[in-house]
Amino acid sequence: MPTPFTVQDFTRRMERATEAAARAGLSGLVVTPGPDLSYLTGYRPVAITERLTVLVLAPGRPPTIVVPRLERPDAEGATGAAALSVVDWADGGDPYAVAAALLDAGGRYGVSDSAWALHLLGLQRALPACHFVALTEGLPMLRAVKDADEIERLAAAGAAADLAYHGILRVPFAGRRETDVAADLARLLREHGHSQVDFTVVGSGPNGADPHHEAGERVIRDGDTVVLDFGGLKDGYGSDTTRTVHVGTAVPDEVRRVHETVRRAQQAAFEAVRPGVACQEIDRVARAVITDAGYGEYFIHRTGHGIGLTTHEPPYMVEGEQQPMVAGMCFSIEPGIYLPGRFGVRIEDIVTVTEDGGRRFNNTPRELAVVA
Amino acid sequence: MPTPFTVQDFTRRMERATEAAARAGLSGLVVTPGPDLSYLTGYRPVAITERLTVLVLAPGRPPTIVVPRLERPDAEGATGAAALSVVDWADGGDPYAVAAALLDAGGRYGVSDSAWALHLLGLQRALPACHFVALTEGLPMLRAVKDADEIERLAAAGAAADLAYHGILRVPFAGRRETDVAADLARLLREHGHSQVDFTVVGSGPNGADPHHEAGERVIRDGDTVVLDFGGLKDGYGSDTTRTVHVGTAVPDEVRRVHETVRRAQQAAFEAVRPGVACQEIDRVARAVITDAGYGEYFIHRTGHGIGLTTHEPPYMVEGEQQPMVAGMCFSIEPGIYLPGRFGVRIEDIVTVTEDGGRRFNNTPRELAVVA
Repeated sequence: MPTPFTVQDFTRRMERATEAAARAGLSGLVVTPGPDLSYLTGYRPVAITERLTVLVLAPGRPPTIVVPRLERPDAEGATGAAALSVVDWADGGDPYAVAAALLDAGGRYGVSDSAWALHLLGLQRALPACHFVALTEGLPMLRAVKDADEIERLAAAGAAADLAYHGILRVPFAGRRETDVAADLARLLREHGHSQVDFTVVGSGPNGADPHHEAGERVIRDGDTVVLDFGGLKDGYGSDTTRTVHVGTAVPDEVRRVHETVRRAQQAAFEAVRPGVACQEIDRVARAVITDAGYGEYFIHRTGHGIGLTTHEPPYMVEGEQQPMVAGMCFSIEPGIYLPGRFGVRIEDIVTVTEDGGRRFNNTPRELAVVA
Repeated sequence: MPTPFTVQDFTRRMERATEAAARAGLSGLVVTPGPDLSYLTGYRPVAITERLTVLVLAPGRPPTIVVPRLERPDAEGATGAAALSVVDWADGGDPYAVAAALLDAGGRYGVSDSAWALHLLGLQRALPACHFVALTEGLPMLRAVKDADEIERLAAAGAAADLAYHGILRVPFAGRRETDVAADLARLLREHGHSQVDFTVVGSGPNGADPHHEAGERVIRDGDTVVLDFGGLKDGYGSDTTRTVHVGTAVPDEVRRVHETVRRAQQAAFEAVRPGVACQEIDRVARAVITDAGYGEYFIHRTGHGIGLTTHEPPYMVEGEQQPMVAGMCFSIEPGIYLPGRFGVRIEDIVTVTEDGGRRFNNTPRELAVVA
């Protein structure tokens, strides 16, 4: 168990976020329950509901959180609460008027991506001249650069996922359903310290060619290529790794060729990681290897996404993302090739940017493993 | 296991919703993943993310869903998909332009309450003259009136929660932590068919006076009054019931008096249920009983909320809600009295409106039970 974050940690994060908002031309931040609020205050309401909870950060004002009166004791119990003014509103009252009093009527605020439309529309109605932008647009890198304590947690989550992968290589595949292997993966993640399992993709044979397939009733057969993509949260931070395995030793040449192409693409992209290089470059490098091998049209998704308190967040490794990499950013590198109706291959590691280049949090072999 | 909903069920719901939107002065509905989308199409994406998925319903146009290309196979696998046009967009493309093409530039649309701000802001930017209102404001009763199949599921979820309550009366309380009893409640709900447990409140002694308290490390003692509020989803529909018990037979007079007051308030509110009466009347009736008994200032929340695919949805039984009750509506009636630092009492049943009055889905005794 890592040392819990302290009120000093949250105070520092709120100060940094407020300064970054000002530099980005924002009047402040409007933060609702979810990863942004957890990151800035440590407060995680039991449920995200129609009752407005919102943290307002703005230069020159004390950080203030508006909460439903019923939830005030919970909010006050959060580690970061000691650094906050807490204002509550009662059922039947107008929470948007309470929040609006903390905002400049003509201001421009970054709002959490996952804030409910109900709440955003309430604020827009209360402040018709106020302008709101989504945080991924106004301040996309709010949580993207991780500090040492966060990197430690992400590394530990990655190591736990690696142990789960070693475990899954020892279970039988042939004759069992994808959902059975997925249940094994979930069990292994939990055994290795995950408190939450977010996904356990088991894409066997043609199902592996659908990158979004989770796990279904298909019975895995000898001769199948199987994509295994799994992760979740350990001590509040995410894991996410993919390896592709083959059932039985008779590996067809094309499977070997496709797998080796993806492995080379993933390695080349990893080697391109260094501070100052644009995120889109990671996508370009991986895509070039796959395109040169003749499979470009079968690499049908971006190359990666950030990870932290969630398993999908900025920065995105995608064409058009010109944000330069910064030491401390953590993201996936996960190229793939998907041959419709036949099979798919994906290889994914979580990587962090250091001054010297990339460092992987997933370190299991990337060669094609054979399972039974 | 109830009969699954069919494409005809979803088609009928989409038609009804489209007509209701037109009657409410809306150009149509903009529906994002969550309970609205499940209700209208049966489609539940694996995760709700930064990638836009949106269903557009508008009179005179075929129902159309916009999905990320990667998720197209999932969307097409949903029961209601056969009644939908499916349009996809690829990573790097502009999903808001794709969705905007389905909307009138000067229209007025109802949008799912829980749609992400990221997505609403994207649509507002693509269509600056378009007006959006939250569904709880524009069309609050979209899912409020349940059909016979839904009522059957809610009744079954309530009966299962009742069995869990009977089970919890037989476990030891004194000397165990609240979290231990909460774990028993979760286990019992699952044993009785719940696939998801949403909350297991165990509020002992002074913790019971915080209506939002979940369950903590406090060790329950002989002489404690304990609020038990638990529920989740069974076959996709919600349960939610509260009973207050006492540990040991030496029940103080004030606990009896407060409990009996809450019981009478809950009964009076239940007897006020009938079609045509305003929802706020349920709150007024319960509150009057408690106020007359001298505890008005200690009843610090609304009296109830709707239930269906979620455990918190319209209609709300709260002062100001003038929506008349309609046969088929299902909601909680849950008055309470909370004496700070001492104890709390709440009694809650899920109730449906019939032509003849209310019908309860929770039918365990409402008298104060004594536990060990």
